[in-house]
Amino acid sequence: MQTVRVALAERSYPIHIGTGLIGRADLVLPHLAARRVAIVSNTTVAPLYLERLARPLETAGVRATRIVVPDGEAHKDWATLNRVFDGLLGERCDRQTTVIALGGGVVGDLAGFAAATFMRGVPFIQVPTTLLAQVDSSVGGKTGINHPLGKNMIGAFHQPQLVLADVGALDTLPGREVAAGLAEIIKHGLIRDAAFFEWLEAHVDRLVARESEALTHAVRRSVEIKAEIVARDERETGDRALLNLGHTFGHAIEAGLGFGTWLHGEAVGAGMVMAAELSRRLGDLTAADVERVRRLVARAGLPVAGPPLGVERYLDLMSFDKKVQGGRLRLVLLRRIGSAYIRSDTPAERLSETLAACAAPA
Amino acid sequence: MQTVRVALAERSYPIHIGTGLIGRADLVLPHLAARRVAIVSNTTVAPLYLERLARPLETAGVRATRIVVPDGEAHKDWATLNRVFDGLLGERCDRQTTVIALGGGVVGDLAGFAAATFMRGVPFIQVPTTLLAQVDSSVGGKTGINHPLGKNMIGAFHQPQLVLADVGALDTLPGREVAAGLAEIIKHGLIRDAAFFEWLEAHVDRLVARESEALTHAVRRSVEIKAEIVARDERETGDRALLNLGHTFGHAIEAGLGFGTWLHGEAVGAGMVMAAELSRRLGDLTAADVERVRRLVARAGLPVAGPPLGVERYLDLMSFDKKVQGGRLRLVLLRRIGSAYIRSDTPAERLSETLAACAAPA
Repeated sequence: MQTVRVALAERSYPIHIGTGLIGRADLVLPHLAARRVAIVSNTTVAPLYLERLARPLETAGVRATRIVVPDGEAHKDWATLNRVFDGLLGERCDRQTTVIALGGGVVGDLAGFAAATFMRGVPFIQVPTTLLAQVDSSVGGKTGINHPLGKNMIGAFHQPQLVLADVGALDTLPGREVAAGLAEIIKHGLIRDAAFFEWLEAHVDRLVARESEALTHAVRRSVEIKAEIVARDERETGDRALLNLGHTFGHAIEAGLGFGTWLHGEAVGAGMVMAAELSRRLGDLTAADVERVRRLVARAGLPVAGPPLGVERYLDLMSFDKKVQGGRLRLVLLRRIGSAYIRSDTPAERLSETLAACAAPA
Repeated sequence: MQTVRVALAERSYPIHIGTGLIGRADLVLPHLAARRVAIVSNTTVAPLYLERLARPLETAGVRATRIVVPDGEAHKDWATLNRVFDGLLGERCDRQTTVIALGGGVVGDLAGFAAATFMRGVPFIQVPTTLLAQVDSSVGGKTGINHPLGKNMIGAFHQPQLVLADVGALDTLPGREVAAGLAEIIKHGLIRDAAFFEWLEAHVDRLVARESEALTHAVRRSVEIKAEIVARDERETGDRALLNLGHTFGHAIEAGLGFGTWLHGEAVGAGMVMAAELSRRLGDLTAADVERVRRLVARAGLPVAGPPLGVERYLDLMSFDKKVQGGRLRLVLLRRIGSAYIRSDTPAERLSETLAACAAPA
């Protein structure tokens, strides 16, 4: 087991990475406010891992409420959130109850937002069971749900007490979701660490084949990069926005197709290629750099172009994104592989050309 | 105009108290992140004050979105909150948009929770138009909505940039709501300031008659007391719980009758008498003290006994309250007038006797 510590202003928390961690009640117990937890999971993950997590806790004297919600991004909504609240209140959970999210990013975001807002905030532990959640949504304290007009439009920052990233749980993950997790891992290399990007170019096949040693390194280095950025900028006022590389394009793809059609990581995969292509048109990346990005994204099993929504529709969808500030579109772009920056004055023609080049027209 | 400054760890904000403040765009402008606001009000307050607030801002170049929701505690729910989000997203409000709550406690809690969670948090300004909201819900950063199983069960802490408490707006307030505001004012005297309690005994008739000088003093002193307590304990882990005097009983009354039957302040009025009576039975207050509390509550125009729900029902409803911690009921009690404390081991018989004495049996 390896441990990365996320250092925040008020407090810090550990992320443990390794195999067999889900059943390790000894890792959870020191972080509970009282011997009372509510485990939120979904209909896919619960049959695989819920009892493995809950029973050792119960053996240790913890009362565990189980709340199982439907699987999928389409259920990251008010109705499902209300089911979590109904479960918490129906079993009389109180302010000392720790909410544990067991599942992927949807469960983490939803259960985290429930923890952030139940009785104005209760403690929270993340047990991410997808690669994407392990490297991305379990680090940084972002929680929330979707609105018909935009993804993650409603939410809160709420830091966990603890994250258990059990890479053994990835054995049961569909290949498409492994690829989606790799998108965020590639992103971390692209924005901050050219050497890690090169390591990924050398090891992507082993990652796709789910070799646990390679996965452990990739998760750890990703988590370190993200934790370092988040620790410096907890509220996303500065550097943290760099983590949105590919996400403004990606959110437009997800919203345009309807959430849940493409996986978030798939949309980010295509979005990173679009960001790289736009960076080339702005004079930063070389054509060879863009080709390296495209090739790594493709080898990870991800799409390298957006769906054919049409340039106008893309522009419209992008203006709904949270990264619009004071009416201006802020984009994360690349100066080179391993170094990202934020730009608010991207020429509209360059953006339109990129959209036309990277997504077949409607 | 008088100003009380609430000092918090990260930042502080001013509460301006006076007449004619709603139209003072000059007081609002320095606190906006951008020239973009969304004013949330209700169908009762909007016709009276919405344009008075919005137009001077628009004259100063601010784009103002108006969101009007139905009036009443019954609408402090998911459905109404969603209408606010629909309004914010429909008019493309962004992270730099300041949400302004114009109305009573329901609008303040609802709009504040929308501000706390829209795009994971946008700036917020309170313009409370009821006495209760001016002395209570506009100070302290508590925001939230109700759940069928309990009041304020879902919410967040979100501090405003500014509070404008326009006592002139109280001229249009129904008398019953003036009384409800007086409940919280009396509470502030009871928990912290015996001299203020005596001042209230001497001036309660003028407050009921809505004399602006007396109201201004009462609002100011109440806000000072609350601000002092909140500044020391922003997250309600210690002293701040003293502000819940009468509220555990009060919440049981509100939940038992159905929210909206009694006003919150009316329930707190009866709840304070119940807390005083329980304090006497525990050997702290004298019978004369309890009588002083009962008389002041009555002269303010408030009920001095709970509705006849029956002791068992009261106990059941109280155990749902947020102040239950680790399964034990924490009550705010009085050592004497002007001094409150928190107790987790109240003997069950004393509580049952008090409920039997202060509420007619079912």
